[in-house]
Amino acid sequence: MTREDGRSADQLRPVTITRNWLDHAQGSCLIEFGKTKVLCAASASEGVPRWRKGSGLGWVTAEYAMLPQATHDRSARESVKGRIGGRTHEISRLVGRSLRMAIDYKALGENTITIDCDVLQADGGTRTAAITGAYVALADAVEHLRGKGALVGEPLVESVAAISVGIIDGVPLLDLPYVEDVRAETDMNVVMTGSGKFVEVQGTAEGAPFDKAELDALLELAAKGCVDLTRLQNEALGR
Amino acid sequence: MTREDGRSADQLRPVTITRNWLDHAQGSCLIEFGKTKVLCAASASEGVPRWRKGSGLGWVTAEYAMLPQATHDRSARESVKGRIGGRTHEISRLVGRSLRMAIDYKALGENTITIDCDVLQADGGTRTAAITGAYVALADAVEHLRGKGALVGEPLVESVAAISVGIIDGVPLLDLPYVEDVRAETDMNVVMTGSGKFVEVQGTAEGAPFDKAELDALLELAAKGCVDLTRLQNEALGR
Amino acid sequence: MTREDGRSADQLRPVTITRNWLDHAQGSCLIEFGKTKVLCAASASEGVPRWRKGSGLGWVTAEYAMLPQATHDRSARESVKGRIGGRTHEISRLVGRSLRMAIDYKALGENTITIDCDVLQADGGTRTAAITGAYVALADAVEHLRGKGALVGEPLVESVAAISVGIIDGVPLLDLPYVEDVRAETDMNVVMTGSGKFVEVQGTAEGAPFDKAELDALLELAAKGCVDLTRLQNEALGR
Amino acid sequence: MTREDGRSADQLRPVTITRNWLDHAQGSCLIEFGKTKVLCAASASEGVPRWRKGSGLGWVTAEYAMLPQATHDRSARESVKGRIGGRTHEISRLVGRSLRMAIDYKALGENTITIDCDVLQADGGTRTAAITGAYVALADAVEHLRGKGALVGEPLVESVAAISVGIIDGVPLLDLPYVEDVRAETDMNVVMTGSGKFVEVQGTAEGAPFDKAELDALLELAAKGCVDLTRLQNEALGR
Amino acid sequence: MTREDGRSADQLRPVTITRNWLDHAQGSCLIEFGKTKVLCAASASEGVPRWRKGSGLGWVTAEYAMLPQATHDRSARESVKGRIGGRTHEISRLVGRSLRMAIDYKALGENTITIDCDVLQADGGTRTAAITGAYVALADAVEHLRGKGALVGEPLVESVAAISVGIIDGVPLLDLPYVEDVRAETDMNVVMTGSGKFVEVQGTAEGAPFDKAELDALLELAAKGCVDLTRLQNEALGR
Amino acid sequence: MTREDGRSADQLRPVTITRNWLDHAQGSCLIEFGKTKVLCAASASEGVPRWRKGSGLGWVTAEYAMLPQATHDRSARESVKGRIGGRTHEISRLVGRSLRMAIDYKALGENTITIDCDVLQADGGTRTAAITGAYVALADAVEHLRGKGALVGEPLVESVAAISVGIIDGVPLLDLPYVEDVRAETDMNVVMTGSGKFVEVQGTAEGAPFDKAELDALLELAAKGCVDLTRLQNEALGR
Repeated sequence: MTREDGRSADQLRPVTITRNWLDHAQGSCLIEFGKTKVLCAASASEGVPRWRKGSGLGWVTAEYAMLPQATHDRSARESVKGRIGGRTHEISRLVGRSLRMAIDYKALGENTITIDCDVLQADGGTRTAAITGAYVALADAVEHLRGKGALVGEPLVESVAAISVGIIDGVPLLDLPYVEDVRAETDMNVVMTGSGKFVEVQGTAEGAPFDKAELDALLELAAKGCVDLTRLQNEALGR
Repeated sequence: MTREDGRSADQLRPVTITRNWLDHAQGSCLIEFGKTKVLCAASASEGVPRWRKGSGLGWVTAEYAMLPQATHDRSARESVKGRIGGRTHEISRLVGRSLRMAIDYKALGENTITIDCDVLQADGGTRTAAITGAYVALADAVEHLRGKGALVGEPLVESVAAISVGIIDGVPLLDLPYVEDVRAETDMNVVMTGSGKFVEVQGTAEGAPFDKAELDALLELAAKGCVDLTRLQNEALGR
Repeated sequence: MTREDGRSADQLRPVTITRNWLDHAQGSCLIEFGKTKVLCAASASEGVPRWRKGSGLGWVTAEYAMLPQATHDRSARESVKGRIGGRTHEISRLVGRSLRMAIDYKALGENTITIDCDVLQADGGTRTAAITGAYVALADAVEHLRGKGALVGEPLVESVAAISVGIIDGVPLLDLPYVEDVRAETDMNVVMTGSGKFVEVQGTAEGAPFDKAELDALLELAAKGCVDLTRLQNEALGR
Repeated sequence: MTREDGRSADQLRPVTITRNWLDHAQGSCLIEFGKTKVLCAASASEGVPRWRKGSGLGWVTAEYAMLPQATHDRSARESVKGRIGGRTHEISRLVGRSLRMAIDYKALGENTITIDCDVLQADGGTRTAAITGAYVALADAVEHLRGKGALVGEPLVESVAAISVGIIDGVPLLDLPYVEDVRAETDMNVVMTGSGKFVEVQGTAEGAPFDKAELDALLELAAKGCVDLTRLQNEALGR
Repeated sequence: MTREDGRSADQLRPVTITRNWLDHAQGSCLIEFGKTKVLCAASASEGVPRWRKGSGLGWVTAEYAMLPQATHDRSARESVKGRIGGRTHEISRLVGRSLRMAIDYKALGENTITIDCDVLQADGGTRTAAITGAYVALADAVEHLRGKGALVGEPLVESVAAISVGIIDGVPLLDLPYVEDVRAETDMNVVMTGSGKFVEVQGTAEGAPFDKAELDALLELAAKGCVDLTRLQNEALGR
Repeated sequence: MTREDGRSADQLRPVTITRNWLDHAQGSCLIEFGKTKVLCAASASEGVPRWRKGSGLGWVTAEYAMLPQATHDRSARESVKGRIGGRTHEISRLVGRSLRMAIDYKALGENTITIDCDVLQADGGTRTAAITGAYVALADAVEHLRGKGALVGEPLVESVAAISVGIIDGVPLLDLPYVEDVRAETDMNVVMTGSGKFVEVQGTAEGAPFDKAELDALLELAAKGCVDLTRLQNEALGR
């Protein structure tokens, strides 16, 4: 089996992370997985939401959204429709949960970091690109707080990265672009720490249910992809 | 380790499925996993949404919601807030995807089945109870269509059931009630077919990332639970 | 004239009140008027809304809603539509006003009771079943507050019950199921106290305007029905 | 007992109906009950909503609303809040139901009349003023359709008028302004036909439940008021 | 060229300002530009929004809206649609900005004036009539605050008035009614102070772009119209 | 007077137009006015909205929005708030009106072009950058339609560009960044055609009303800026 873009089954698309793409945000990057482009921006502010005040704990939250012309056919703007779609909601929650695993709230102190992941162009893997880029923006926002002397300790306890994997014609493949994504029998998004543990595993049968062997093959592929992404994150952060 | 309700680690809570709890719906059941009570109702109607007309294919969709007093502390009504929360959106999508794996759209013909899962009381595992009960309602709605001569073939290709599993103090446990759910380090919802394959695997690190061995233990536990639930579904359906 | 279900003109449908149907709510019952099933749940919490703080007075409020599959044809979910319909609004206000007549706010002290009436199945008379069941849940929520020593005096000054009456082919009938409701020329909902006084009288000409004699006949019929319902409420409450 | 404005118990406030207050609407009037000012406008258009097409029947609907500065303290605009309040919903439905009793849909033919009642200033009795004025606008809209040859027969089968009554310190009073309305123990809105029959009777206990004798006294008072209003409607319409 | 209503190119339609048209509002007028009728109401209250507390500065805000039957064809109610349209938003902002130029916030002290401009009938020029009438209501609301001793100084530093101008068949015309408005190649709304300076200039090419000479001609015409309107405002205010 | 960034009063900030920044949209560019970055994307599709079908005319529409982290302090997402703010509405309408002046609908034929202008970073002049960039995207979308043989004639009758001007300390300045914008006494946005005519003139007094001489000075400055921008547009389009 040959992939349309010539990659091997376990190869990522070209990934670029342009750090500090924005001037105002406390952390930001434009992350690209092939043609997928996601702008990740992190704001860091002192103080936490009212329900968390006095707890000594910080707060990290995230929002994911897609520009109307990110997709092949223009989609209606959610602000114009007056409501957020289920997919947007679901991915925003996934991004937030994933990033929170990278953070020690006590060490963060009563500070809030809000991360926005806006998909400027979508070609498959937008949620995993968002998580991977969001970690870079998060790390810079933490540094910003450190520079202001606002931290209690070292809040960055882990790095997180994410990748999609899927099975097409029985073959497990890494990092699916849109043309592959629509053909996949099984679709899985995996979020992992830099130390190789799982943060989220979301596997969905699309065409047919899958068995344990397929699941294992997909997880192995994802683990390989996350190792590569972790290296790219570290390079972008100058570590 | 002893569970608060005296169960063993791989034991379901008492599960009851009261089929045809409603008079009007084409399929319905009240499903209980311990104190969790979910009312599942399926409407079957001829015709499909406009975008699917003329395709010869049927359509299955689902909505999940929770009554305000289902939880320990009353929560605000989403209809009053004027918007659906992210959790509701996410679970509705999960239930719909899961049930669609049970159906052959071609055999269903241009008919639509809509399944509503309303949580009357929540004590952990509401989404998995919803999926398990929804399958029973779905099966009866399919029979209703068969009785009207509206089917093209046999649309019910599989049964689906779902269960939650989690790790507490390092021990993998089956079917977590609320008191266990809030303590779990890792939380996983697994949807499986009656034939033992995976439809959805959603594992989330809550307190700490998890490794492959933990993932495998959880999946094994879930598989056992789904076998039990499949048997109960069959009993309820008089198979 | 014979009624389809064989009842006499002044006879209620079989009414059952299953008290404490829920585990978490401070008061609850499942009330059934024939096939109409309404789940009534009351939450009792210390404190009142901000605008009432420091007044020494309590607060009672109610919300009424219908599950999408309660009706013969599935209706769209109001949370999905993003707005509450006029009928829902109107009935929620009616239930709230009716229950507030049962309560002495000063004796309740600064506590809030919220009552949710969710129609699980609708076959006519849902608003009157809701009011009748809500009173039972309210009474138990008051007892809950009493048990916590949160009351100032005896807030339950009256009981309230409600019934629908209507005129079909010139004959006044008690407790109309859906098939009768759609044929009624005049439709009236009456809320009364246990002591036989009126709390709400809402008469609506459907097919033709009505005269004073018809109004009087309907009120007399309703009074009889409310006496029966008051007895059933007392039995359910073990009085 | 003396009323603050010197009226006797069974006397209306000064009522004026300025017909054709607007230039574009097919029927309109500004109706005043004392300081209460309601602008009623009726649009008449050929055709009916989709669900009624081909039925040969017409349609009449109504919307009631209040300008933000109509009340003593400015209230927030419902369009800005993004949702219609329960009171607005409830009154819009009441106005619509009441006017529909004046109309024979078959004679109206497949035409639609929409009536808007906008309260410019509120001093009690806005819903009853709205119904009374709306009838005048409706009658003119019907004439407009007649002039275009769009009617099938005579659709105006009745006139409708409405008035509020209430009990203060045990005394039944007609047409309550705001200062009396807030003090009333019982509050009733009555809609009647020109021929003296009831269209709507909505009685609400405010301070204490009421008995049959009080109800009868209020209805008698309301009947007298509606006779007066019917005469004023006829004068305004030049009958 | 002759205008349909016989006016000369630089002549206003008959303008009437009925001051104190409402009883409750602290300032109000019904302003008419020909058939265009706008009800302007100003509420004055002590205190400012939270974000302005302690600043010593007052606040002035405005909302513009149109009744559904103000236009030739009934338009849907924005409260029913659940959202405010772009045109309403845009004009509300324009009215607010314009009035704020009339006010010295320091002299106003921590008081808030809210002005509502509700178009009862629209025949072109509704936004300019709204601004012109709103100034009259604003002036009375300021007097109301002065009477209560709530002012710090003299907040009314200027008067503001507004007029529309446009070019039809190459001829600049003042104060366009609807029939002219739809034919205009260029449309301009100009807000000016009583002292003849510009507050807002909003020129829009409708059919074709315009040049500097046309712009100058329109501004000159507008200046003349605003002088006339300022005189009418002063007369209405008894200056 | 010296500007903070060293520019002369009539000098633009560095402007860059990166054409075809997106892969899917039929026309797109990333336009930068200094730190202001706006992504403009045009979709071209055959067919027009229902109300325009059969007219033989095309349709052009635009939407403007801002990412939450575009501003110095993160602003709430309009999709999350569930409603579009007044400023967004106002600017979307301005962009749409401006672009429509560039188009001959008859020559466009029954095709629709939708232009999205999303502000990725805001530093003053976002609406004028949006219009200037949108024209480039529009031109490419027209070419796309030409390539498909979908055009009736040459729809691009003009080019449009826009710039902001303002007065600070009495000095008229071209192209204000945020730090200047907040200090401006008068603020004006001017949209012009490539042939030097006005499409929109929107002048707003911020601190004090302005006179004709100031208005003239600002328009002259804007005209100069638009000449420069037109040249940059032509370069980007390879003309």
